[in-house]
Amino acid sequence: MAYSTIFWKLLYSLSISMIVSQTPIHGQIDPSNPPNFIIIFADDLGYGDLSSYGNPTIHTPNLDRMAHEGQKWTNFYAAASVCTPSRAALLTGRLPVRSGMSSNIHRVLFPDSKNGLPASEITLAEQLKKAGYASACIGKWHLGHKEQYLPTNNGFDSYFGIPYSNDMDFIGNTDYNKLAQESPIAIKMEDYNVPLLQNTKIIERPANQNNITQRYSEEAVSFIKEHKDEPFFIYLAHNLPHIPLFASGNFLGSSKRGLYGDVVEEIDNGVGLILKTLKETGLAENTIVVFTSDNGPWLPFKTHAGSAGPLKAGKGTTWEGGMREPTIFWGPGLVKPGLVSELGSTMDIFATFSTMAGIELPKDRIIDGKDLSETLIHHKPSPRNSMLYYRGTELYAARLGDFKAHFITEGEYGQFGELEVHDPPLLYNVNQDISENFNIAGNHPEIIEQIKKLVEDHKSNLVKGKDQLAERE
Amino acid sequence: MAYSTIFWKLLYSLSISMIVSQTPIHGQIDPSNPPNFIIIFADDLGYGDLSSYGNPTIHTPNLDRMAHEGQKWTNFYAAASVCTPSRAALLTGRLPVRSGMSSNIHRVLFPDSKNGLPASEITLAEQLKKAGYASACIGKWHLGHKEQYLPTNNGFDSYFGIPYSNDMDFIGNTDYNKLAQESPIAIKMEDYNVPLLQNTKIIERPANQNNITQRYSEEAVSFIKEHKDEPFFIYLAHNLPHIPLFASGNFLGSSKRGLYGDVVEEIDNGVGLILKTLKETGLAENTIVVFTSDNGPWLPFKTHAGSAGPLKAGKGTTWEGGMREPTIFWGPGLVKPGLVSELGSTMDIFATFSTMAGIELPKDRIIDGKDLSETLIHHKPSPRNSMLYYRGTELYAARLGDFKAHFITEGEYGQFGELEVHDPPLLYNVNQDISENFNIAGNHPEIIEQIKKLVEDHKSNLVKGKDQLAERE
Repeated sequence: MAYSTIFWKLLYSLSISMIVSQTPIHGQIDPSNPPNFIIIFADDLGYGDLSSYGNPTIHTPNLDRMAHEGQKWTNFYAAASVCTPSRAALLTGRLPVRSGMSSNIHRVLFPDSKNGLPASEITLAEQLKKAGYASACIGKWHLGHKEQYLPTNNGFDSYFGIPYSNDMDFIGNTDYNKLAQESPIAIKMEDYNVPLLQNTKIIERPANQNNITQRYSEEAVSFIKEHKDEPFFIYLAHNLPHIPLFASGNFLGSSKRGLYGDVVEEIDNGVGLILKTLKETGLAENTIVVFTSDNGPWLPFKTHAGSAGPLKAGKGTTWEGGMREPTIFWGPGLVKPGLVSELGSTMDIFATFSTMAGIELPKDRIIDGKDLSETLIHHKPSPRNSMLYYRGTELYAARLGDFKAHFITEGEYGQFGELEVHDPPLLYNVNQDISENFNIAGNHPEIIEQIKKLVEDHKSNLVKGKDQLAERE
Repeated sequence: MAYSTIFWKLLYSLSISMIVSQTPIHGQIDPSNPPNFIIIFADDLGYGDLSSYGNPTIHTPNLDRMAHEGQKWTNFYAAASVCTPSRAALLTGRLPVRSGMSSNIHRVLFPDSKNGLPASEITLAEQLKKAGYASACIGKWHLGHKEQYLPTNNGFDSYFGIPYSNDMDFIGNTDYNKLAQESPIAIKMEDYNVPLLQNTKIIERPANQNNITQRYSEEAVSFIKEHKDEPFFIYLAHNLPHIPLFASGNFLGSSKRGLYGDVVEEIDNGVGLILKTLKETGLAENTIVVFTSDNGPWLPFKTHAGSAGPLKAGKGTTWEGGMREPTIFWGPGLVKPGLVSELGSTMDIFATFSTMAGIELPKDRIIDGKDLSETLIHHKPSPRNSMLYYRGTELYAARLGDFKAHFITEGEYGQFGELEVHDPPLLYNVNQDISENFNIAGNHPEIIEQIKKLVEDHKSNLVKGKDQLAERE
């Protein structure tokens, strides 16, 4: 063989291998090098608060790019319409009624609550620890502020954040609600005596909320850089755009949407920093980032509340606006880009990431989450076809496929009406009638029967956990 | 100079010229080869009816890609909340109150209306003809069905479409409204005796609406191919998703959103065919396509109506849901991609395309449209800072920057209340309070004064045209 022929053959092989190494092969999880996971969880962000979900004036270029490069989910649910139960469900993959992290007495934990997430529950951090993941919890916890309930006693290697909502420990005298018709309003971080914790120690009180979003994002960026040589899991739970609203630096006063827009745009900027870090460290191809929120917008706070877009009602209710969330999965090496209008839930993240990390699900308990990995990687149909809508420990509504039956409806915060029991239930085709306006119960007794069967099956094996939210000091 | 040096120099020049020819330079309009223009105009499509504008279940991948590659406008207005005046304004760049194409007696033209767009008005087709553009009108006209009012007598070289709304000439006996709570409903094209015209001749009656969207799109594709060697203008005005709804072939029964979704997805597919044709014919770099709609969703038709997303009310009203439209400008060689949340209006298209084609605006009349070309090409701030909201010949509301004042509000089709005069006007910051919920008139008398001044200035030079919609046979 002439040297020149060998030269061309070598060049050919080289170019082929370059092509191969540059093209991510979707679905190729290497068990010896499982993917990293990042959950970015917003607080009280509404379905309609990102540009890519139809907001006219909040500019979220980083989340929009994330949606374009990844999967944009449009029927994805939090497991509760308020904070504490929603977070418990996300981290355990279970309905909060099972863990006792929902209650008919108090809807969330307060600074004087006695309890928190039971030690018997397995968090996603504990689960991933079985495969040696390093993990960080950054941001709002709200699953118990006493030492034994904090993130570092629930599987996380480290914690940096506030233990409950940013409007708790209120020591000011401003009626925020009255002022929130227009932004900005003059609210001081000193009006809230919320502590900032490093692991289990208070390092700042009141937490300086003016730049807290930026600090959370920077914390995540540092963690990525420090742990780039091992599998890691970051749970970044921003405590905003829950009121009181704070934004820092260039973001303050920058958004057409006012202060609420400033806050969301600063969160969006943090998402951009995190994705940029993943690209620069070469980790992007083997990392999955999911962005979502804990519940719908807190509507009584007017322009300081988000928008549920076309969905009905907001936080605190079992209408779609209370529990359906803008949800984006991103991972250029693993997630197949596209729009997914099938069902998903924050509870599914536990099972999905467990599968991807090669960890078996616990066999001693019911896990409500479904494994979405085939949908994420290959765009196969979602395994989830139903959703249960709890308020406290009561099942108010259930969805099966296109249809949702409301057995009980109840507004919240003085909006959307008093408690009403419906027999027959109200029935909506929520894929066609996206704002839940046209009750079609009379036309579809057979669908009501199917949904009732779903609920009976669920209740037949339901053991309600001891109420962890009721007791206060 | 050695031959080898010359060879490398030549190769270098060649590669540079290749790079230059492959990289579109934004804003380089060649006066000797002005851009082609395509307006794709939907009928009764709501602000929230595309995936990229937040719809959860209507999949519009072609329009979403168009928005990603082009400019997505989020504060873009039709000039009226119903069909006839909106179309008159789009094609003339003028408020319909000036041309007489709005009325307090009948809101639109009917099959027994006597008149149409006055011959004295200059349509965009007539305007572009000054620079030798070939032009086609495809779809719904609704500016007069008598011969002298038809597109070919208003500057267009050809016409293929229906002369008024697709629900007119009703000869069936179905109460569509009652049935539209759920889709599909059994409605026959024969229930509507609407004619299909080729230029000024009826070629089909009733028009076969089952595949009409597809035929319109194919007509546009053919026109592009036939006119690829000269500047052209296509006005493609789909008569759907105005009720009655029809979809064809694979689209019928395919959308999670039901029949309304089928219809919008077939329109989206047509957009894809048009953009593909532009790319294949090499015209994409020198063509601007704009997609928008004539007014908001016709809400009483329930699941057969669209969604205004987070905006209030719909068709027929001067709330935002009645007149703000999803609007996308695309042109890979000319339009700088991005999100534009500044103001624009369908009336601006006349001035913008005139400028781009190097044609002077008429000097003998008031043109209400602004030239958006610097915004499209260079992403400069929009020259539009205000919007006037007419209902018939009465000014109901006016917007200046972030703020909108309602002097009169009135619902329509039995929804959103009776006529109410407001003094002081209701005042909303529509960029912050996107659903027009929080009246802040009491806080901002100075803004109300500014808006009143804007209205006075406008009225001081307003000559209302003779009502062309009032007379019927």
